[in-house]
Amino acid sequence: MQMTEKRDVLIKEWLKEAATEIKEALQHDLEVEVKSRANDLVTQMDRKIEKELVQKINQHFPNDLIISEEGFGDHVSREDFEQQTVWFLDPIDGTLNFVLQNENYAVMLAVYEKGIGKQAYIYDITHNKLYWGIKDNGVYCNDQPLPKMKDLPLDKGLFASNSMFLSDQQVSFNAEITKRAMGVRTIGSAGLESVELTKGSTVAYVSYGLKPWDIAPGLFLVEENGGVVTQFDGSRVDLLNTNPTIMATPTAQKEITKLLS
Amino acid sequence: MQMTEKRDVLIKEWLKEAATEIKEALQHDLEVEVKSRANDLVTQMDRKIEKELVQKINQHFPNDLIISEEGFGDHVSREDFEQQTVWFLDPIDGTLNFVLQNENYAVMLAVYEKGIGKQAYIYDITHNKLYWGIKDNGVYCNDQPLPKMKDLPLDKGLFASNSMFLSDQQVSFNAEITKRAMGVRTIGSAGLESVELTKGSTVAYVSYGLKPWDIAPGLFLVEENGGVVTQFDGSRVDLLNTNPTIMATPTAQKEITKLLS
Repeated sequence: MQMTEKRDVLIKEWLKEAATEIKEALQHDLEVEVKSRANDLVTQMDRKIEKELVQKINQHFPNDLIISEEGFGDHVSREDFEQQTVWFLDPIDGTLNFVLQNENYAVMLAVYEKGIGKQAYIYDITHNKLYWGIKDNGVYCNDQPLPKMKDLPLDKGLFASNSMFLSDQQVSFNAEITKRAMGVRTIGSAGLESVELTKGSTVAYVSYGLKPWDIAPGLFLVEENGGVVTQFDGSRVDLLNTNPTIMATPTAQKEITKLLS
Repeated sequence: MQMTEKRDVLIKEWLKEAATEIKEALQHDLEVEVKSRANDLVTQMDRKIEKELVQKINQHFPNDLIISEEGFGDHVSREDFEQQTVWFLDPIDGTLNFVLQNENYAVMLAVYEKGIGKQAYIYDITHNKLYWGIKDNGVYCNDQPLPKMKDLPLDKGLFASNSMFLSDQQVSFNAEITKRAMGVRTIGSAGLESVELTKGSTVAYVSYGLKPWDIAPGLFLVEENGGVVTQFDGSRVDLLNTNPTIMATPTAQKEITKLLS
């Protein structure tokens, strides 16, 4: 069995276990703590799920490294990233939704070998939809292959963004982009926004300050399905840093980069 | 049987029939036409569902009047509205989502007697969730009663709005509201936004230019579950006109009215 397939079987098993735990936890009150600011939250479940997944990865793949949100992963240098197998892990992407809505969040994993994306998983637990893909094998929702993205321009589709971007009045491009698109949509989870784009439900997603674990799974699925992921200036996203990020169809990415420059 | 209960049984039956037709239609290409502008769309299904529901209402309740989106309803005067039973009907709320995403839309109905809301229905067909309520009987999702809304302020919850409002740079209150709230969310369906508020997933929804059929069902459910619906200046919504609309918890409504004045 190829390494990607071996990982695929295990990851899908682990994600099902995580989903069961998360659904069970939602039957009771969550323990919520504030991190950097009032709307940056963490719950006991973010920590528990991350810790468990890190243990499972370490057990089965002791040589691999992990970049994760809640601090149970490794410090990964640029040299490591370019020479080793690195897992990106976001135990609960959209924690604010998880706490306030009990839905619209995702568990996310991606594996990169020597800096190249090999496979990614974004699990919308509420709707029991696992979006996943393995390199050169297309993107799936559960067992159904997703059709390739159409290369639509901004004015033929919906534009997704996040709160900070939409409420920033300093940036005139915000209004320009939102007016050019057919409408604006905001879910509040970078992972689920990547999925919407990958599915063709939107033509672009733009956000400030996405962290490596916010971007890596979506980047893989979007690119695998015909989309483009860059920083605002059109340069390649750096998966070891925070990035102002555009995920879009090739045409919408060009339009947005131009509006942002 | 009381009149509300008689209607309730019929409406639920009709909505199931509508859902079956809509799901079937989504297996094929939709016929899409542009109405007032590029992102104001109508499909053959908006027209078909409205026509069928209007016929059913007329057949069972020949004295009642209908205010509906696609033109198959009646002209209802203020005197009619205050003295008769009036149905509000939106065959597909969120038509842009219906066309571009094939999800995140709703079929909506509400019944007002002599200007007073008696019952309302917002059916999220994709997720098979019917949100409904009868006056003084609470709000339900399918068979499950929804807990009453908590009276949370803006800074304890999520703020929902629409594209036009969020991209309007003339209005400084936009940034002020979005910064005060924990985050911004945008679905693109006034009906589903009303449901999010009614469920407690958001604390406010603000939109320009909502039409009577966009507002009437959500207004009923939000108020029945402890929320408030007003125009931007705090005055009562006029269900015979287009309204700039705030739907919110009582506290968030006060905050937003103040910011908008």
